[in-house]
Amino acid sequence: KALYQMQGLLLSNLMFRLHKGLTALGQPYDYSTCMVILCHSRVLGADVAFGIHNGVFIPTIKELGIEAQIAKWVPLAQDLQIIGTYAQTELGHGTYLRGLETTVTFDPSNQEFVINMPRLSSIKWWPGDLGRSATHALVLAQLYTQGKCQGMHAFIVQIRSLVDHSSLPGVTVGDIGPKMNFDQVDNGFLILQNVHIPRENMLCRYSEVSPDGTYVKRGSDRINYFSMVLTRTRLLSAEIIPALAKACVIAIRYSVVRRQSKLKPGEMETKILDYQMQQQKLFPQLATVFAFHFMASSFEAFCNQVKVQIKSKGDFSSLPELHALSAGLKALLSDVCSAGVETCRRACGGHGYSLLSGLPSLYTRVAGSCTYEGENTVMQLQTARFLMNCLSKVYSGQPLPQSVSYLSDLFSTRCCGTEKTDFIKPPVYTKAYKHRAQRSGQCWGGNAIHCCLMFSLCFFCCQAHCQYTIVNNFVETMSRLQHEPEIQQVLQVLCDLYALSGILANAEEFLHDGYMTGHQLDLVTASQRDLLTCVRKDAVSLVDAFDYSDQQLHSAIGSYDGHAYQRLFEWAQKAPMNAKVPFALFLALSSCC
Amino acid sequence: KALYQMQGLLLSNLMFRLHKGLTALGQPYDYSTCMVILCHSRVLGADVAFGIHNGVFIPTIKELGIEAQIAKWVPLAQDLQIIGTYAQTELGHGTYLRGLETTVTFDPSNQEFVINMPRLSSIKWWPGDLGRSATHALVLAQLYTQGKCQGMHAFIVQIRSLVDHSSLPGVTVGDIGPKMNFDQVDNGFLILQNVHIPRENMLCRYSEVSPDGTYVKRGSDRINYFSMVLTRTRLLSAEIIPALAKACVIAIRYSVVRRQSKLKPGEMETKILDYQMQQQKLFPQLATVFAFHFMASSFEAFCNQVKVQIKSKGDFSSLPELHALSAGLKALLSDVCSAGVETCRRACGGHGYSLLSGLPSLYTRVAGSCTYEGENTVMQLQTARFLMNCLSKVYSGQPLPQSVSYLSDLFSTRCCGTEKTDFIKPPVYTKAYKHRAQRSGQCWGGNAIHCCLMFSLCFFCCQAHCQYTIVNNFVETMSRLQHEPEIQQVLQVLCDLYALSGILANAEEFLHDGYMTGHQLDLVTASQRDLLTCVRKDAVSLVDAFDYSDQQLHSAIGSYDGHAYQRLFEWAQKAPMNAKVPFALFLALSSCC
Repeated sequence: KALYQMQGLLLSNLMFRLHKGLTALGQPYDYSTCMVILCHSRVLGADVAFGIHNGVFIPTIKELGIEAQIAKWVPLAQDLQIIGTYAQTELGHGTYLRGLETTVTFDPSNQEFVINMPRLSSIKWWPGDLGRSATHALVLAQLYTQGKCQGMHAFIVQIRSLVDHSSLPGVTVGDIGPKMNFDQVDNGFLILQNVHIPRENMLCRYSEVSPDGTYVKRGSDRINYFSMVLTRTRLLSAEIIPALAKACVIAIRYSVVRRQSKLKPGEMETKILDYQMQQQKLFPQLATVFAFHFMASSFEAFCNQVKVQIKSKGDFSSLPELHALSAGLKALLSDVCSAGVETCRRACGGHGYSLLSGLPSLYTRVAGSCTYEGENTVMQLQTARFLMNCLSKVYSGQPLPQSVSYLSDLFSTRCCGTEKTDFIKPPVYTKAYKHRAQRSGQCWGGNAIHCCLMFSLCFFCCQAHCQYTIVNNFVETMSRLQHEPEIQQVLQVLCDLYALSGILANAEEFLHDGYMTGHQLDLVTASQRDLLTCVRKDAVSLVDAFDYSDQQLHSAIGSYDGHAYQRLFEWAQKAPMNAKVPFALFLALSSCC
Repeated sequence: KALYQMQGLLLSNLMFRLHKGLTALGQPYDYSTCMVILCHSRVLGADVAFGIHNGVFIPTIKELGIEAQIAKWVPLAQDLQIIGTYAQTELGHGTYLRGLETTVTFDPSNQEFVINMPRLSSIKWWPGDLGRSATHALVLAQLYTQGKCQGMHAFIVQIRSLVDHSSLPGVTVGDIGPKMNFDQVDNGFLILQNVHIPRENMLCRYSEVSPDGTYVKRGSDRINYFSMVLTRTRLLSAEIIPALAKACVIAIRYSVVRRQSKLKPGEMETKILDYQMQQQKLFPQLATVFAFHFMASSFEAFCNQVKVQIKSKGDFSSLPELHALSAGLKALLSDVCSAGVETCRRACGGHGYSLLSGLPSLYTRVAGSCTYEGENTVMQLQTARFLMNCLSKVYSGQPLPQSVSYLSDLFSTRCCGTEKTDFIKPPVYTKAYKHRAQRSGQCWGGNAIHCCLMFSLCFFCCQAHCQYTIVNNFVETMSRLQHEPEIQQVLQVLCDLYALSGILANAEEFLHDGYMTGHQLDLVTASQRDLLTCVRKDAVSLVDAFDYSDQQLHSAIGSYDGHAYQRLFEWAQKAPMNAKVPFALFLALSSCC
């Protein structure tokens, strides 16, 4: 709390002093100069400062605004003359967007929208950059015109003065208090009571309210969701995958410094990375980083392709597929990366519990991604619903979107591997993943028991589909590396390891209908162990290749030079506890207790 | 960091002022009065203040000391005239105790022990109550006498002055810096250079160095481990299980307040606890709390029984069994409760990420228990090693300790359930767990593949044994409730739910050798779903019955009255950000930036 207070005071203070300072110098008041300085200030934590402003507010205006709106607002935002937030989530509703309660009612008599929040649960809650910073909010609200609700739309609302940063009439705004992490982000609350905005402030590329109040729609209902899809996609490469990558760097480097227990008397103690147990914890995580990295790249390319289709041809046909895949991937990657970071953290023993290791804050931060930008369970349900629609198309003989076309492929019933080396053949494991994804889907056509299993099938189905897609994509990426055999050789081991570790982690689903036998599973286990040994020799080079600087990792135990114990000891000496107490502060505090 | 600094300063300051104040009043200096006040002070966080002093230092002296040592040290400690810590873990070694590097060498010429730490990695690191508080340390170190190392023993070492709390000559002591949680505990480091202590300061109930330097041993080598077993046992009921219990209370209460999405148009939105998905997340956790609670009670009884055997009859024969079970249970319970708390936290969506929900700090705290008091992977290995010894006894026809006697029972090969109601019969699921535990053990006799599977078998084996023990214990506890049928009825559902959820979570192990078929597993799934519906009606009463006060839960969303949104809003208003900045503080801070 003290830290928190300090940050807030520094920020308010900085704004105030900049304002005062510039005014005192006789210069005309320049709000944007203050903002530029603030934005580059280390006070805010450079990596997340104004993340919503840059990452969501500006892109959403570009996606949902018409040219005139983009021309008016985007330059202001880019020059930091205004700071924007994206005010969607409310105290009472998150991922279920249809339940949002904030209303925007069109009044044709003065060509204005009137915004209201009918009850406590309607208060906007969680938007980033809102608590102390934002001057403008993109408010997502139910649009009412001519007495009828037209569903959720986006409106630009000024909430704070551009002169002195005070909140405008009808606006109550503040901070929502401390969180598990993201202390630098001023997540806020926003209450709007009878706030009027001009008709032009509704982002109207895809739907509009005409001066007489008539609601006019252009294009798909789903377009409002497109900006969320893009945000979710950026999240994979910007937040989720790097968290696991950094955790792997720290844990693998520490594991070649830490020695524990002797294998033979008289020898040196063994580096813990030489224990199969430690390899089993860390190497599948390392393989996962690569699998997810290649998947995110492919998915971004797909996103850009759909974006072009929509913008240039008004063709929305790929949006459901894009939305479903983005939801499923976001849920899977955030779950797996959170669990993976925690596995890396615990693999560093007691020192992984020290904040100085850098690992606890990687976890508390990435854990948030399981909930924000769409709660994972709901995301999985949405993907599962899309898959169910696709299956009904299979039955009626209709064509399927490319990413799910395998659902209509021939269904194999038995895995053909007989020796442990069979299972590192990409066709063998790809087929197994494909069978599992097909089967989870097909179960939905099933009997009474399967009906009451439906909820679990949703998750199996979504996960099986996404994991098949990722394995398939890794294999395809490897095949494109045929002209770089050295790289291909190293990465192929990780591809195999990712695939086999996934089979072992979900063994039940491969055994359940007899696709694999217990004996085949034992062969997979044996084969996966061999791969761990192969990865061992390249492990440190592979994490070094991620090229994170010591400053980016901020870990006493994961630095490039391997001086883990020295750095732990030195950093601990800097703890405030160990410093001499300055006399003035000492006197000041004496009066407090 | 600021918070951290504040706490430290308050403490140093408080000590200093108490000392000064009492001296100024002309009273004789009374160190223990200072300590009593400190100990009860809210500054330290009452629940964890001096936890190591009370929970480990005093009990260990009682366990490992002779009467004269107990008579000398325990009253001093109980009266807080001294504050003790337990200094075992070093910068370079944790759970692998034989690797500890601190040396204690006996010098017969002056009847003293001389303590040294030969290198950086030998520094004591992590002991609680050490950073700022402890005056004495129980130092665990390698004993050298007559030129020979006799292994790890415990020594009482004074580290700080009882007059002014300054560190004594040869002693360097400080705080190890910020952690994932436990900020109130002053985990510290300790460097001892050529520190001399009298011969009497070695705790010598079980081994002694005579005046001429001869090493004399009484009783088992393992007795040094007994105090760790007791600490681990206390941990279950004092830290690990309550974390999951509190998380269940918060998440289940919030889930009847939170409504999301409509099942039918026109109706109110549905309470999220009425969704099977939410029940699937939370109810198995609730059942787990009961299963673990009953297990911990039985295990404590077993501990006390062994304690009596050792103290009264010098009979150490049950110690290996006790040690193995304590290690396995500690690993399983800390893993499961940590994961369970995080499941509860995420089940509360965005608000579960706010510190105001109380859930993040439950996680960051209980997560530590996976590492401290014995790293979980090493604990599982130790239990597995014990089980392997027991199996070799089975083959050679020797009798087995009571808790593992089932290993020599008849081995059933097929599960006999044919309808979903069969699977809520305790004999059916108990038998399934028993089969799995027997099988994991028996695999070790296996072929070449099984050899390279040995490491994973360790974990399967340990987990299968512990889970069988817990299910068995739950069933037995229920049978003792036959005279309280209302209670029995409610708890029996939880017993069934715990057992079936565990089968589903480890389905692979029940399918692998054909003990269960895929169809039987579907019946288990269906049966488990029915149980969720049964638990729904009692869920809120069950968590209310844990009788945690709102103050103990400290959760804006989990209070008894259900006013989640009001309290979130009110508590957020108290965030420092939302307060007016006091002018004096404002000026003070202006000069900082």
